[in-house]
Amino acid sequence: MLPKTLAWNEDGALEILDQRRLPEEVRFIECVSLEDVARAIEDMAVRGAPAIGIAAAYGLVLAEPQSAEELEQALSRLRRTRPTAVNLFWALERMRRKTEREGLSREALLEEARAIHREDIETNRRIGHWGQALLPENALVMTYCNAGALATGGYGTALGVLRAAREQGKSVSVFACETRPVLQGARLTAWELAEDGFDVTVICDGAAAMVMKEFRPDAVIVGADRIAANGDTANKIGTYGLALSAARHGIPFYVAAPLSTIDASCSDGGAIPIEERNEDEVRLLPGGKYIPDGVKVYNPAFDVTPAELVTALVTEAGILRRPYGPEIRRCLERAGLEQGARKGDGR
Amino acid sequence: MLPKTLAWNEDGALEILDQRRLPEEVRFIECVSLEDVARAIEDMAVRGAPAIGIAAAYGLVLAEPQSAEELEQALSRLRRTRPTAVNLFWALERMRRKTEREGLSREALLEEARAIHREDIETNRRIGHWGQALLPENALVMTYCNAGALATGGYGTALGVLRAAREQGKSVSVFACETRPVLQGARLTAWELAEDGFDVTVICDGAAAMVMKEFRPDAVIVGADRIAANGDTANKIGTYGLALSAARHGIPFYVAAPLSTIDASCSDGGAIPIEERNEDEVRLLPGGKYIPDGVKVYNPAFDVTPAELVTALVTEAGILRRPYGPEIRRCLERAGLEQGARKGDGR
Repeated sequence: MLPKTLAWNEDGALEILDQRRLPEEVRFIECVSLEDVARAIEDMAVRGAPAIGIAAAYGLVLAEPQSAEELEQALSRLRRTRPTAVNLFWALERMRRKTEREGLSREALLEEARAIHREDIETNRRIGHWGQALLPENALVMTYCNAGALATGGYGTALGVLRAAREQGKSVSVFACETRPVLQGARLTAWELAEDGFDVTVICDGAAAMVMKEFRPDAVIVGADRIAANGDTANKIGTYGLALSAARHGIPFYVAAPLSTIDASCSDGGAIPIEERNEDEVRLLPGGKYIPDGVKVYNPAFDVTPAELVTALVTEAGILRRPYGPEIRRCLERAGLEQGARKGDGR
Repeated sequence: MLPKTLAWNEDGALEILDQRRLPEEVRFIECVSLEDVARAIEDMAVRGAPAIGIAAAYGLVLAEPQSAEELEQALSRLRRTRPTAVNLFWALERMRRKTEREGLSREALLEEARAIHREDIETNRRIGHWGQALLPENALVMTYCNAGALATGGYGTALGVLRAAREQGKSVSVFACETRPVLQGARLTAWELAEDGFDVTVICDGAAAMVMKEFRPDAVIVGADRIAANGDTANKIGTYGLALSAARHGIPFYVAAPLSTIDASCSDGGAIPIEERNEDEVRLLPGGKYIPDGVKVYNPAFDVTPAELVTALVTEAGILRRPYGPEIRRCLERAGLEQGARKGDGR
């Protein structure tokens, strides 16, 4: 059985499954302070847009702000951890609003963090419910990075769709792209799916186009870190190339994400800030070898897949189709999620 | 200065630069027997289609066949080393024809192996001569895998074009895709280009599409392991996806290769045998982690880029343009390279 990605324990601390050590070691980090949580997010001990948002919410509980100034400092520290996944800003904004209604009570903040966590799992299940209908009885699916239980409060977005399909009695086989540089596909998705008994095959990212041609997957399903108002989707670096290959081979390309991943204040993908991460993620090669020092490394953590390459967005509110703009507006209005909900993003 | 990829030494042995150890260690393997050479090819101590052909030719010298039967055994052992790079079969066929003309004399065989080696470097320089004309004065180029001095007798095919451009006074900056699983881009191309003073930046393979969009390289230039009669090109796994991304961004996609890489007996890419290599190339992750045993791995070593995605073929005979079929036939006829030259491929 999969260990929990995030858990608030009896000692009033946040236990985070250290995803940097997987699959070799299942170890937890006990976060007792805001700074512990902020570093766990920065260092990618916890990663995945929804999981980052939940962790940050618990992080604010641990900050125990006693004044408006301390609250703002804590929010600011957490907002600086990672720039692209918008769920971080969404969750912190939701926490801030809670303090507007109920003050700085630790109980109230914990209640809201728990609600964000619980609702994320429910949201994933709804995403799975809608998304599984897109898959045939015997489905061959390709995925990228990890948009699974490990990336969320539990169950997963893209991988939640696969879980839901299996719960409906469908057979699901998976090609997991290894996802350099941090190898979330090889280390996390493969491990998570194998633990749950899925038939999963890891391929190098460069093999995706050839595998699409030779094996004709029924669908590519990925998660998202931020979706613009027009449907342009920021996700793990490599997603854009994967979408180009899928389009070439006529394979549906689905993005599975909660509405909280949509940032209506970004009119298109060009407005989404793209994190550039430490070169050492790329420099260290298997076998302990390093890229020579005289060689530069460029390590963008995300790319933007234009909406025209996305066959459908799978959200808790249902399947959205192109043109995404009106569909997204309608969904956010219904859900009461407005553009203002994402202020404080710092862009 | 770059060490030599292959060198016949004074002791009558073949010295092979062990490319598995680069960039951490510059070490040579001294091959004194056919089996030494065959294993160096299989294990990728030497790799790159032209270099494999040259190594195999020297390997036949070391076999010292004393009879037609021993000759056939030696040829057969070498042909079995790797299936995709056609230069292997081309070089061995050329060696076999030498024995038809001059018998099994070691001197004659060595003379032919040396000629293959020497001509390969000359060929690369001609490829460079033609290819550099495709680049602007200040060129930004993307490449994949290693089609450099390390992959050939010296100078390189794709990277030879960059060298020739610089010799013409052009400025050349390079994005090198790391090229999982064996990382020839990060380990070999980056090292080779940095040693020669090029400005080179390594990116993960998945970042290529985003880098094309953001930095607009003037060209993508790659090598080839086998080119079919219609121009379909087998090259390192990941090349096909790269070509799809280049097409999307309107970036010319050039394949630089000697005519000996063309296999006119393959009418199209579907006839090219694609090697599947050991899973462990993929399984071992940085930091000593492994993909869990319950997870499968699929590790094709090459893919096929359809001719329609190849902007031009850069050969020693000049720049070939679509439709490639007639151009290729004309060049091979002029060069006296017929389909029969590739028999013994074992397909």
